[in-house]
Amino acid sequence: MYIQLALDRMTVDKAIKITKEVNCYIDWIEVGTSLIKEFGIKSIYTIKNVFPDKPLVADIKTIDNAKYECELCFEAGADIITVMGVAPLVTIETCLNEAAKRKRNIMIDLLNVNETTLRKLIECKDAIFCAHLSKDEQELSVSKAEHSFDRFNILEDRTLAIAGGISIDSIEKIKPFNPLIIIVGSAITQAADKVKAARELKQSILFMED
Amino acid sequence: MYIQLALDRMTVDKAIKITKEVNCYIDWIEVGTSLIKEFGIKSIYTIKNVFPDKPLVADIKTIDNAKYECELCFEAGADIITVMGVAPLVTIETCLNEAAKRKRNIMIDLLNVNETTLRKLIECKDAIFCAHLSKDEQELSVSKAEHSFDRFNILEDRTLAIAGGISIDSIEKIKPFNPLIIIVGSAITQAADKVKAARELKQSILFMED
Repeated sequence: MYIQLALDRMTVDKAIKITKEVNCYIDWIEVGTSLIKEFGIKSIYTIKNVFPDKPLVADIKTIDNAKYECELCFEAGADIITVMGVAPLVTIETCLNEAAKRKRNIMIDLLNVNETTLRKLIECKDAIFCAHLSKDEQELSVSKAEHSFDRFNILEDRTLAIAGGISIDSIEKIKPFNPLIIIVGSAITQAADKVKAARELKQSILFMED
Repeated sequence: MYIQLALDRMTVDKAIKITKEVNCYIDWIEVGTSLIKEFGIKSIYTIKNVFPDKPLVADIKTIDNAKYECELCFEAGADIITVMGVAPLVTIETCLNEAAKRKRNIMIDLLNVNETTLRKLIECKDAIFCAHLSKDEQELSVSKAEHSFDRFNILEDRTLAIAGGISIDSIEKIKPFNPLIIIVGSAITQAADKVKAARELKQSILFMED
């Protein structure tokens, strides 16, 4: 199980500083949507340049204009880009193709995807599927967080990432879903002691895999 | 009927140059998603500074993290921000609230929204509704373009914008839907003679309103 560090709502310099501090406890780096929208695609380029050996996920949340956004992200150094599961299927397929021809990958963000769409998306066998409880939904209801991953059981053997308010306290609940990736943002980036928070998360995962 | 000039897939300098050329024929300026994602939020700030008297739509396509994205856009000078209709309802409501407290507005992008969701969204009486055939869908099938606006009849008296491959050739088909705003991108920005293209579109609209 890998930890993807989501970098959001901070400057690029701050993102680099935090990532350096916790680097040995995290596996993948996510340049968050807020970094891309606030500072542009160069946020990806800058962060990849500092951490060339860590897989970089560009959370571009593509929902249209797939070819252009894929080109921007992959050329800036992204290894994986996100596309919204609620996008038209042609957009998701374009992202898959653009990734495949560069031997990169996509992560399909399942935010607000209904079951009908989910059953269609399963056909994208090579993609990573991100079960995502959004920030806005988390702020609405904590209880919904526990509730909403069950419906992803139909993903079966697909590669799964789980995102949304994951912390040392909630990580046990995620275990049954056996994700390849857990996406952690503020539980590390907003922690008073970020290194301790990252180390404890890493240790709790190692323990889970025993 | 207003023309919203969508600025996409170009530098900010080019966007400003084109807008200056066609300024007297267009009504609203849209800083396109691709400009925001490529160059960051300062693309909004820069363009608003050059055209302070034109309403500016930031096509930020919010689907999460609504409060943060609203703050970024409105503080950069946006008068209207876009939010995806396929987003969780809490995200759309947050955008509505953030806009209302600044006496600004939101445009709900109806891309890939099903009828059930559309019926819920109608309750957002103050929003502008954007019937949107995406770039990726346009490239898939031209015929779908004509097909897909009919289902928006249920929007009745809501403020309507129409986007997606609109040109001087297709503008007649839009007339029955009586939108307040037509969103035009490449039919102007990619035209060999951009001023002529914008002037002809403006004239065709004046004629339609007679």
